[in-house]
Amino acid sequence: MTQTQQYIDANRDRFLAELLDFLRIPSISADPAYAGSVRQTAEWVANNLRQAGADHVRLEETAGFPIVYGEKMVDPSAPTVLVYGHYDVQPADPLELWDNPPFEPVIKDGLIFARGACDDKGQVFMHVKAFEAMLASGELACNVKFMIEGEEEVGSDNLGLFVASNKDLLKADVILISDTAIIANDIPSIDVGLRGLSYMEVAVQGPNRDLHSGVYGGAVANPINILCQMIASLHDEFNHITIPGFYDGVLDLSASDRAAMAQTPFDLDAYQKDLGIQSVHGEKGYSTIERASIRPTLDVNGIWGGYTGEGAKTVLPSMAYAKISMRLVPNQSSDEITRLFTEHFISIAPKGVKVSVKAHHGGEAYLMPTDSIAYQAASDALATTFGKEPVPTRGGGSIPIVALFEKELGVKSILMGFGLDTDAIHSPNEHYGLFNFYKGIETIPHFFSNYKQLSN
Amino acid sequence: MTQTQQYIDANRDRFLAELLDFLRIPSISADPAYAGSVRQTAEWVANNLRQAGADHVRLEETAGFPIVYGEKMVDPSAPTVLVYGHYDVQPADPLELWDNPPFEPVIKDGLIFARGACDDKGQVFMHVKAFEAMLASGELACNVKFMIEGEEEVGSDNLGLFVASNKDLLKADVILISDTAIIANDIPSIDVGLRGLSYMEVAVQGPNRDLHSGVYGGAVANPINILCQMIASLHDEFNHITIPGFYDGVLDLSASDRAAMAQTPFDLDAYQKDLGIQSVHGEKGYSTIERASIRPTLDVNGIWGGYTGEGAKTVLPSMAYAKISMRLVPNQSSDEITRLFTEHFISIAPKGVKVSVKAHHGGEAYLMPTDSIAYQAASDALATTFGKEPVPTRGGGSIPIVALFEKELGVKSILMGFGLDTDAIHSPNEHYGLFNFYKGIETIPHFFSNYKQLSN
Repeated sequence: MTQTQQYIDANRDRFLAELLDFLRIPSISADPAYAGSVRQTAEWVANNLRQAGADHVRLEETAGFPIVYGEKMVDPSAPTVLVYGHYDVQPADPLELWDNPPFEPVIKDGLIFARGACDDKGQVFMHVKAFEAMLASGELACNVKFMIEGEEEVGSDNLGLFVASNKDLLKADVILISDTAIIANDIPSIDVGLRGLSYMEVAVQGPNRDLHSGVYGGAVANPINILCQMIASLHDEFNHITIPGFYDGVLDLSASDRAAMAQTPFDLDAYQKDLGIQSVHGEKGYSTIERASIRPTLDVNGIWGGYTGEGAKTVLPSMAYAKISMRLVPNQSSDEITRLFTEHFISIAPKGVKVSVKAHHGGEAYLMPTDSIAYQAASDALATTFGKEPVPTRGGGSIPIVALFEKELGVKSILMGFGLDTDAIHSPNEHYGLFNFYKGIETIPHFFSNYKQLSN
Repeated sequence: MTQTQQYIDANRDRFLAELLDFLRIPSISADPAYAGSVRQTAEWVANNLRQAGADHVRLEETAGFPIVYGEKMVDPSAPTVLVYGHYDVQPADPLELWDNPPFEPVIKDGLIFARGACDDKGQVFMHVKAFEAMLASGELACNVKFMIEGEEEVGSDNLGLFVASNKDLLKADVILISDTAIIANDIPSIDVGLRGLSYMEVAVQGPNRDLHSGVYGGAVANPINILCQMIASLHDEFNHITIPGFYDGVLDLSASDRAAMAQTPFDLDAYQKDLGIQSVHGEKGYSTIERASIRPTLDVNGIWGGYTGEGAKTVLPSMAYAKISMRLVPNQSSDEITRLFTEHFISIAPKGVKVSVKAHHGGEAYLMPTDSIAYQAASDALATTFGKEPVPTRGGGSIPIVALFEKELGVKSILMGFGLDTDAIHSPNEHYGLFNFYKGIETIPHFFSNYKQLSN
């Protein structure tokens, strides 16, 4: 056993206690009422990083929440690993669905329950503790830089500017990120692909005011009925998206890649049972894993219009609205998809309504080659600590800054996360396994030593 | 000129002043916060009816708001007219869209602006004042009974029981109701048909919790997308409703009836301009008037699900909901349509979701024959006071108690209303014309004398 691992074992309890403190501060970036707590969290991270032994630890101010920076340059000839993570968290509502208050962490059945336990505090903190252990043991094989932001849950608006303005400071050979999941605690995996995102908001206007549905029903276009028809038309009977040009940029997987993906362990019964559904549902010709990772999608995230209170109101409303987002795959372009959606949606509106479309933040899809040394270093590290080689998976979610990093810094990211899909991120009762927290801290030092070795 | 008309002319200002007092009391039956005001309004009506000269005026208590009753039996051999109306009003929200407070009536451009001005206080009050004038002038040709309820806007839940339990008290030859509209102030009309109503509420459940749309999007059924598809499927490309058996009960109009209906004056440009739409929209093969009156319809009155706040949230929600109502025509049955809708909606749900359906209050469609003496009496009365014969029209809205009256009392209702479609009932800035208020008071006595004459 390495000295790093001995150090980790000797300090397990303190590591956990510190994580619980980290989880207690409600760093909800989406809600202005918590702005003070978000800043407080940034300061907590900076202090902890400082105590772990990092140099030049500081808060880099932005137009929004600060980015925590710190570094340790041990050897100019060694490769440099840039660790990215975020200290902000999703809002916790609906609060009534939490078994325990979201910012009062509890440990039950080997799981740490709190908002941010997995996404991303538990995961980013593994890196700070692994760093502390490697440094204290004199076994830090690579130079390391930390860039931990506070706006990931609200679109990382200010990160791009920071990165573009600090290319020298952030110069590195690889970016290491833990904000994704493994397949299961006995089936390690590495996310080699992320889907992109295009997020639209539409409004459909019928008459210029709410109308009595008896006097006018049947004679004028009802914007809710029309919106439903327009949304329904965006998929055909095979659940294939009908927007013209939508699939043009899609890089289809080779037959061998699909065959390899089909080997990924997946328990359909358990998946359906966990979600309480009778059946999965998606694009004809693709498996569930493929539908959730290498195929683009279109989901309505929210819809509203007309009377939504108690009882009945016979109104033919003036307006109907929806938020619609699309997950994209390489090489679809987020801006191009936004344009295609907008043109198409406006074109399918019937004459009796007016339609408006606006775009929210998007992000590009991403792919990391499995023959890269970064992937090899991570794969070997997981093989060591899990006792079996990890499966390369394509993630369903988007981390837009990964494409941003490649564009601005010319550096690829390795997504070596330790969460589980069942951790309920973005949902009530989010949690993170003690197993996963400690396994991550144990694995990260192997990545560093592997990466150093493979870089020679 | 009759003495009745002289009396009306001499008391015009007082009639209006009393109406404004009536309008000031916020009798919002849907909102428990106004229960006291609703009762206060009932008492105001009873007092006014008493002062007008009616006998046995009292509040008939129900499980909800009281029904105001009063009568004048002038001649056992004369026919008896039962006058129905309601003293409760719709809620006024959204308040910010009113130019003046909804319960502080103002008169502008010959229009009385207030919630309830047309629906139904202005209209029912015409009957109380016409009665007062006829009685004071010794020209009351028929016996008259008043039944004015306080729950029409919330479904008249307790009226059915009252009517069924008081058949002797309410014995009459015809029921006279003013709660509908004429085509224009120079184009009188009588509503000889009303559409029925079936009002459904549906819920679609996908996964058992909100999910991250990146991790699960494309792999599981999104209940909002599914709900949109199910709703969209309820109409075909000709805007014909696709529920099996839906049209089975529909009594098609004869070619001559359709030809007569096509003669109804209708200004499509003005209609579209008033509503701010480029084009009307409805069932292929039918005119706008037909679509809004003699054809059944399906409208979504409200829809909601997922994230509906500011900005973007990448959620694949657990639930989606909609309120859907159908206007029915003779001889469709409200209960049967409710059953057909429920069966069909559940049957079209795909396997990845669970669907639940519940029904709110409905009502039957209604038809009054134009060769009846009641219709003739009203038609002649309008011909006298407007100088031209009225057009028989089929109304789009539902007044469910009309079918109830026929069922329980065996009596037809004549819908001799004096409102206009532009009066904005159920909307902000509801109003009623001074012209219409006084024309109604002038016309009602002619109905009474005609009806007496035609009954001999």
